Amino acid sequence: VLLLNIHHTAVAVRDLDEALSDLAAQYGVVPQHREVIIEQGVEEAMVAIGGSNLQLLMPLGDDTPVGRFLSSRGEGLHHVAFQVVDIEAALAHLEESGVQLVDRVARRGGGGHRIAFVHPKAFGGALIELVEVS
Amino acid sequence: VLLLNIHHTAVAVRDLDEALSDLAAQYGVVPQHREVIIEQGVEEAMVAIGGSNLQLLMPLGDDTPVGRFLSSRGEGLHHVAFQVVDIEAALAHLEESGVQLVDRVARRGGGGHRIAFVHPKAFGGALIELVEVS
Repeated sequence: VLLLNIHHTAVAVRDLDEALSDLAAQYGVVPQHREVIIEQGVEEAMVAIGGSNLQLLMPLGDDTPVGRFLSSRGEGLHHVAFQVVDIEAALAHLEESGVQLVDRVARRGGGGHRIAFVHPKAFGGALIELVEVS
Repeated sequence: VLLLNIHHTAVAVRDLDEALSDLAAQYGVVPQHREVIIEQGVEEAMVAIGGSNLQLLMPLGDDTPVGRFLSSRGEGLHHVAFQVVDIEAALAHLEESGVQLVDRVARRGGGGHRIAFVHPKAFGGALIELVEVS
């Protein structure tokens, strides 16, 4: 697996407008991209910071993955995303290594990129997303 | 506040050797830097990934900030660190904006950098560290 970058670090929030307003007031940064992704049940905003990004995730309802995360853990860091060269090769390598995957097949994520999640059991309890940038 | 980069995203782990071994097997990345920081009660490893870093934190004991985090939340994402140009200016701006700080004065962190933590209440429940690289 060739990692190109930490594509983004994601934060789950209850109110996307409020979180973006806090971020702008505190750090002077604004989102480049904002998108509702129905299939994932989220509205997301991507904020470039140097060579990486901060992603904000707001659930579209309580019965969504991020909605359930907020119910059980509250607001806070949600996952970290590694940008890979070839997401199929990365998933094949992880599966051969016995790593538990959330998504065995890549799917469409925000920005039209191809993404897949790795189970947090695999590494330090951290939810990891793989991203192949289109 | 001028943000230069996401300096690192940190993961709290129980066993640093095991986490580094998982990371190497799964993603082929190894730490550039490993350090015991007595004052913070942690052993940390820094793994460069593209233009940012993944930081692994292992507590030196249960009665440390990261030890208490593991007891209450378990392993997982711990904080995200923003690299700033001038940490005093950043802390002054945040304090003037009414933001709750964990550290009102910068202190020495890993790699000899100057760091300070911002309370997770300030933005989306996420613990944010400011880093001025030396």
